[in-house]
Amino acid sequence: MIKVGIIGSTGYAGQQLLWLLSNHPEAEVVFLSSHSYSDKMYNSVYESYLGIRSDVCVDNKYAGDLLPKIDVLFLAMPAGESFEIVRKALSLGVKVIDIGSDYRLDSADEYESWYGKKHEYSEILSEAVYGMPELNREKIIKASIIANPGCFPTAAILGLAPLVKNGIINTSSIIVDAKSGVSGAGRSASIGNIFTEVNENFKAYKVGNHRHTPEIEQELSKLAGFSFNLTFTPHLVPMNRGILSTMYASLQNQVSEDDIFEVYREFYKGEQFIRIKKDMPETRWVKGSNFCDISFKIDKRTNRIIVISAIDNLIKGAAGTAVHNMNLMFGFDEKTGIDKIPIFP
Amino acid sequence: MIKVGIIGSTGYAGQQLLWLLSNHPEAEVVFLSSHSYSDKMYNSVYESYLGIRSDVCVDNKYAGDLLPKIDVLFLAMPAGESFEIVRKALSLGVKVIDIGSDYRLDSADEYESWYGKKHEYSEILSEAVYGMPELNREKIIKASIIANPGCFPTAAILGLAPLVKNGIINTSSIIVDAKSGVSGAGRSASIGNIFTEVNENFKAYKVGNHRHTPEIEQELSKLAGFSFNLTFTPHLVPMNRGILSTMYASLQNQVSEDDIFEVYREFYKGEQFIRIKKDMPETRWVKGSNFCDISFKIDKRTNRIIVISAIDNLIKGAAGTAVHNMNLMFGFDEKTGIDKIPIFP
Amino acid sequence: MIKVGIIGSTGYAGQQLLWLLSNHPEAEVVFLSSHSYSDKMYNSVYESYLGIRSDVCVDNKYAGDLLPKIDVLFLAMPAGESFEIVRKALSLGVKVIDIGSDYRLDSADEYESWYGKKHEYSEILSEAVYGMPELNREKIIKASIIANPGCFPTAAILGLAPLVKNGIINTSSIIVDAKSGVSGAGRSASIGNIFTEVNENFKAYKVGNHRHTPEIEQELSKLAGFSFNLTFTPHLVPMNRGILSTMYASLQNQVSEDDIFEVYREFYKGEQFIRIKKDMPETRWVKGSNFCDISFKIDKRTNRIIVISAIDNLIKGAAGTAVHNMNLMFGFDEKTGIDKIPIFP
Amino acid sequence: MIKVGIIGSTGYAGQQLLWLLSNHPEAEVVFLSSHSYSDKMYNSVYESYLGIRSDVCVDNKYAGDLLPKIDVLFLAMPAGESFEIVRKALSLGVKVIDIGSDYRLDSADEYESWYGKKHEYSEILSEAVYGMPELNREKIIKASIIANPGCFPTAAILGLAPLVKNGIINTSSIIVDAKSGVSGAGRSASIGNIFTEVNENFKAYKVGNHRHTPEIEQELSKLAGFSFNLTFTPHLVPMNRGILSTMYASLQNQVSEDDIFEVYREFYKGEQFIRIKKDMPETRWVKGSNFCDISFKIDKRTNRIIVISAIDNLIKGAAGTAVHNMNLMFGFDEKTGIDKIPIFP
Repeated sequence: MIKVGIIGSTGYAGQQLLWLLSNHPEAEVVFLSSHSYSDKMYNSVYESYLGIRSDVCVDNKYAGDLLPKIDVLFLAMPAGESFEIVRKALSLGVKVIDIGSDYRLDSADEYESWYGKKHEYSEILSEAVYGMPELNREKIIKASIIANPGCFPTAAILGLAPLVKNGIINTSSIIVDAKSGVSGAGRSASIGNIFTEVNENFKAYKVGNHRHTPEIEQELSKLAGFSFNLTFTPHLVPMNRGILSTMYASLQNQVSEDDIFEVYREFYKGEQFIRIKKDMPETRWVKGSNFCDISFKIDKRTNRIIVISAIDNLIKGAAGTAVHNMNLMFGFDEKTGIDKIPIFP
Repeated sequence: MIKVGIIGSTGYAGQQLLWLLSNHPEAEVVFLSSHSYSDKMYNSVYESYLGIRSDVCVDNKYAGDLLPKIDVLFLAMPAGESFEIVRKALSLGVKVIDIGSDYRLDSADEYESWYGKKHEYSEILSEAVYGMPELNREKIIKASIIANPGCFPTAAILGLAPLVKNGIINTSSIIVDAKSGVSGAGRSASIGNIFTEVNENFKAYKVGNHRHTPEIEQELSKLAGFSFNLTFTPHLVPMNRGILSTMYASLQNQVSEDDIFEVYREFYKGEQFIRIKKDMPETRWVKGSNFCDISFKIDKRTNRIIVISAIDNLIKGAAGTAVHNMNLMFGFDEKTGIDKIPIFP
Repeated sequence: MIKVGIIGSTGYAGQQLLWLLSNHPEAEVVFLSSHSYSDKMYNSVYESYLGIRSDVCVDNKYAGDLLPKIDVLFLAMPAGESFEIVRKALSLGVKVIDIGSDYRLDSADEYESWYGKKHEYSEILSEAVYGMPELNREKIIKASIIANPGCFPTAAILGLAPLVKNGIINTSSIIVDAKSGVSGAGRSASIGNIFTEVNENFKAYKVGNHRHTPEIEQELSKLAGFSFNLTFTPHLVPMNRGILSTMYASLQNQVSEDDIFEVYREFYKGEQFIRIKKDMPETRWVKGSNFCDISFKIDKRTNRIIVISAIDNLIKGAAGTAVHNMNLMFGFDEKTGIDKIPIFP
Repeated sequence: MIKVGIIGSTGYAGQQLLWLLSNHPEAEVVFLSSHSYSDKMYNSVYESYLGIRSDVCVDNKYAGDLLPKIDVLFLAMPAGESFEIVRKALSLGVKVIDIGSDYRLDSADEYESWYGKKHEYSEILSEAVYGMPELNREKIIKASIIANPGCFPTAAILGLAPLVKNGIINTSSIIVDAKSGVSGAGRSASIGNIFTEVNENFKAYKVGNHRHTPEIEQELSKLAGFSFNLTFTPHLVPMNRGILSTMYASLQNQVSEDDIFEVYREFYKGEQFIRIKKDMPETRWVKGSNFCDISFKIDKRTNRIIVISAIDNLIKGAAGTAVHNMNLMFGFDEKTGIDKIPIFP
C-alpha cells in the first residue's frame, strides 16, 4: 500500500483522480490540497463523497509540509505553479505525476513561447517522461517524474501514432479537428462557461493557437523521426465528458483498409485500453472508462485517411492515465483501479 | 460463485444490471437474453462492452431452456410477460428477482385494474417479497422471488417511510411530485422520445394515472398500518439519469427540524445506501451509485414538510437494488458490487 | 412611435426585451444601459445583434441623464437598486415598467422581510400596478408605474386564478411545484451555474424561502378576497428556457373536468395569450412566445385538482409581459410585437 | 398575396417553413400535406400552433389535386418521391421550391450513384436552379423550379466560395469537418435518435459517404472553373439546432488576414444574410435566424486557412433559404418574412 497526495484535488481532474484512487487497492490518499476550498470538507465541495470520504482540504501552500508522508504526488495545477513543490518532492524522493502541463514540452523555450511564462525548473525536463503508457512504458516504469499527457494530445497521438510511426501518411498533411465536452474547461466560473451560454451551442476556440498543438507535434515528430507541424482545432460540445478527435491525412501509398487495420492491431498489440474498431468511435462508449476507441476510413476519392478516436477526457485524458502511470511506476498490475466498464447511458 | 441469467438484458435496466454484475466477485452471468437483439453480439448492441464481454444474446423464448444452468434469474420485461418463465424458474428452484412490475402489487385485482391485463400467476403474489432492503431485509433473505421496486416508488417510499411509520404526517395530505431522467422511459424508439422532442423541454406525463401510484400507496400504507391514497405526478427531465422526488405533507404536530432529522437517522440507522443530508439532494451527487440521498425542510408558514429524495433511477431505482437483493438472498456482504462512488460530472 | 430606454439591458431579461422591441413598429429603443458592459458595443456582448444593432452600452449610472429623451423606461435590475432612478423617471413624466422586483409587494415591510433591505420608495407602492394584463388590464392602461410580475408568479397565478377567484379549491391546500430553465438564474457566473454542474442534474433550490412566494400569495389572496399562505418550491431544469408549474389543491366540492374547463374558458375569454388545453402543457410548445398554456386533471382518488401551466420564462415570464404592458399603457394593439409563434424544436 | 402549398409539412423543415410563412405578409399557406399525419389537426402534431393555425393535414397523395389553387409548391420529401408531383406542378405553371435533394445534382448519373435510385425526371435537371441566392440570384429570379441547397452544403459553400472563386486556396486540399444539431436527422423515431443515445454523446456519421459531398463539390467546382473532390465529414452534436462547419485548405500564396477579409467583404457585398466576423462564429448567435456567420484564421505554421461558418440548419440551411428563393421568384423584398433576430439563449 503506497501513500498518495493530490495537489489541486478540487478541480475536475483532481476529483476524478480521487474517484479512481478511493477504490484502488494498493494506494491510500493521505492528503487532498486545494487552492479554493482549503479547510473545507471535501464532501461539501463534492457531495458525491458524503459517507465515503471525510477529508478536509489542505491549502495548496501547506502541501509541501506533507510530502514526507507520501510516496507519490499527483498535481493538477494551472501552468507555471508546480515548479517549487515538484523540486521539493523530487528532492525528498517522492515520485511525481503532473497532470498539468509544466513538464510536457521538452524545450523550455517552447514552453515559454506557448505558455507565456518562464520555465523555472527546466533542468528537470530531460528527466521527465511523457506518460503515455502505450508509447513509453519502459521509461515510465523507471521514471521519478511523469508529465501526464494532455486530453487532446492523448486522443490525437493515440489515433495517429501507428500511421506516423509506419510512414503511412504524409505528415505535412495532418489536420486534427477535436471536440471536447465542457469538463475540459475546468471548474471555474466565467460567463462563457455558464449553462445557458454553452448549452445549445457549438463553437471552435483558440483556433490556431491552442497549447496542446506543440505537445501533439512533439510526440508525433518523435515517432516520425523528424520534426513537423500540423493543424489542430479544438471545439466545445455541450456535454459533460468526452473527446472525439477527427483526424485527416493524405496517404503516402495505396493501401487497403485491411492493411491499415493490421498496422493498428500490431502497433497496439497487448494494450488493454486501446480498442481498434470497425464501427466509428463515439464518446458514449468510453464514458467513465480508461478506453481509447479508434477507427478510420479511407476516402479513396481524395486518397485521404480519416481517423477517429474517442476518450473520456477526465479518465484516459487525465486521471486514468495518471493512475496507469502510477501502477507502472510502482509495479502494480497495469489495470488496477482503472478497469472500469464504460457507464451508459 | 453463483450463476446468473438475465432476461431482457438489452434494455437500459438490464444493461445496467450487467454492468454491475460483470464486476461482481461472487456472480457469473451465464446468459443474456433479449427480445430485439437475439443472436447479436451484446457488444454490438452496447459497444461499451467491446473487449469486456463476448456474449451472444439469446432469444427470450429460449431462456427457459437455460434455467437449469443458473441459481438466480433476473427479469427486466414489460408488464405481463414474465408469468410462464417465472413459474418455471421457481419450479426448478431458481431464485427470481423481477425488475419488472408483475409481482409488486399484492392484489391481482389491483394489478388488472392498473396494468390492464389479467395476472396469470396470482398464487405466487403472497410469496413474492417487495425487495426494498431498508424495509424488508429479513424477508428478502429468505425469499425465493423478489419484486424489485419501481424507480419512482423507491425514491418516494424511502423519502416518506420514516414520517409515515412514525405518524408524523397526515397521510391524506401526501403529494409526490417526481422528476425523472429519460432513461426511465426505456430503450424504445418513438417520436416522443427522440432527442429534439425531449431536449429543451419539460413536461408532466400520465398525470393522475401512473402505474407506480398504487405501488407507493401499498407500501406506505403497510407502514402506516392503514390504507390511504396519495397524489403522484411524474415529470420528464432532459437528462439521462436520475430521479428527484419532491414530497409534501402536512405535519400532525409541531415538530422541529432537529426532531425530524433524528427520526430519519434512527429509521435508517446502519443503512449503507441512505444518506440523510442537511443540504438538499441533487441527482448529480448520486449518479452512477446506489445511494438514496434524503433531506427536508419544514415550511412553518403552512405547517408542511417538504421532503426531497434523489436516486440514480437505473441503479438504486432498478439494477443496484436488484443486486442488493441478490446479495441478501445469497448471503453475500450487502455492498458487494454496488459500493460505487457517484460519478461526477 | 414612442422612445424607450432599457436599464440592465445586458442581462437575459433585458436582452429578450431588446429582441422584442427591435421589431416593435411603435417603439424605438434610444438607449441601452448596463452595469457590466458599459462602453461596449451591444453586439459584442450578444453577437446575435451583429448587423442589427450598433448601440454602445451606457453605464447604468448615466441612464438618469437620458430620461428626458424617452417616454418609457424598462428596468431589469437586482432588488433594491431601482429606487433613485424610478423616482426621477416618474418626476419627469416618464412611464416606468420594472421587470425587477422592487414594486411587486404592496407592503414595504413584506419587502424588507423577504428581500433583506429597506424599501426606499415605499410611497409609490400604492400607485404601482401589478402588471398582469389578464388580471389588471384596466389599471395597467392608466398606470404610470408597472411592477412586471416575476416568472414563477406568472405561471402560478395564471394557472390558479380561475380556481381561486371562483372558490373552487381550498386555498390552504395549495402547493406550487415549479420547474425553471437556467436562464431564470440570470447571466452571472458562479460555480453553481457552470455547464458541467447544471447539465445532467436536477435539483430544488431555496426550498421554503424563495422570494416569489409572497408575490404569488399576495395576488391570489386578492382574488380570493382573503389572505392565505401556500407552499412554493422552485426547481432547476437543465434547459435554457421555460417554466412548468405543477399545482395541487383540494377541491371544495364535487366538480367535473368539463365544469372546470368552462370556468377557465370563461375566466380567460378573449385573452390572446392564454391557451386552455386538453393535453398537458409542455414548455417546448410555448418557447419563444408570449403564450401561457394551461391544463389540469382531477384526481378523483384524492379529490385534488392538478393544474399545469407552461410559459417561456423570458417572454411571458418577463420581457413579453413588459411589452404587453407597454402596449396597454400607450394604447397600441395588445399583440403588437409579441405575437410570436413558438419556435420548435 | 400568393398562395402556397407545402408537401411534407410535418417534418422539421416543413414545420419551420410554416413558421416563417405564417407571418409572411405576401404569402398565404392554403394546404399542408403530410405522409404520417394526414387528417390530423396540424396543431395536434405541433401544439405550438394552437390558437394560430387550424389546418387539417392533407395526405401527400391528394396534394396533386390542390395544385390548381396555388402559385408555388414547397416540397420537403425523402429522396426520390418528388418526381410525379413536381412534373404535374410545373405543367400547371406552379413554381416549385424543393427543399429535398432530388434536383440538386446536375447529373442524373451522379444522383443515381449517391442516392441509389433512378432519377425519373432527369429532363428537368438542366432547368432546376441551385437556390443559393448569394451565388445564383439572377437565375433564381427567373426560375420555375428551385433545388434548395442542403444544410451542410449551405454552410460549406458559403464559407469557401470566396476563396475558391478567387483561386486563393488549393482545391485539392479542402477538408470540411461539419457538426450539426439533431434536428438535421429529421423527425423520425429510431433507437439511434432517442434522447438517451444522443445526449452526452458526440459522434461522426456516414464518414466518407454522405450524400451532401457531391453537392458541395459540384457547386464549388463551378466557382473554381474546374472539377475537384474534397473530404467531408459530418458529426452529430447533442443540441437541437445549428451547423458549425470547420474547413481547412492550403493557401496558394502568402496572404494576410486583412487581404482575406477584403476578399470576403467584396464577395458578399450587399448580402443581407452573410455576416463576416472577426470573432469565430458560434451556432448560438445565428439560432432562429437566416444568417450565415463566417470567419477564419490563417495558421502560418502550416500555411493553411481555417474557415468557420455557422448557420441555423432549419432556417438558413432549409426553410429560410426556401422563403428567400420565393421572395426572389415573386419579386418581394428579399428579407420579407425572414429578417428574424437570432433568439438567445
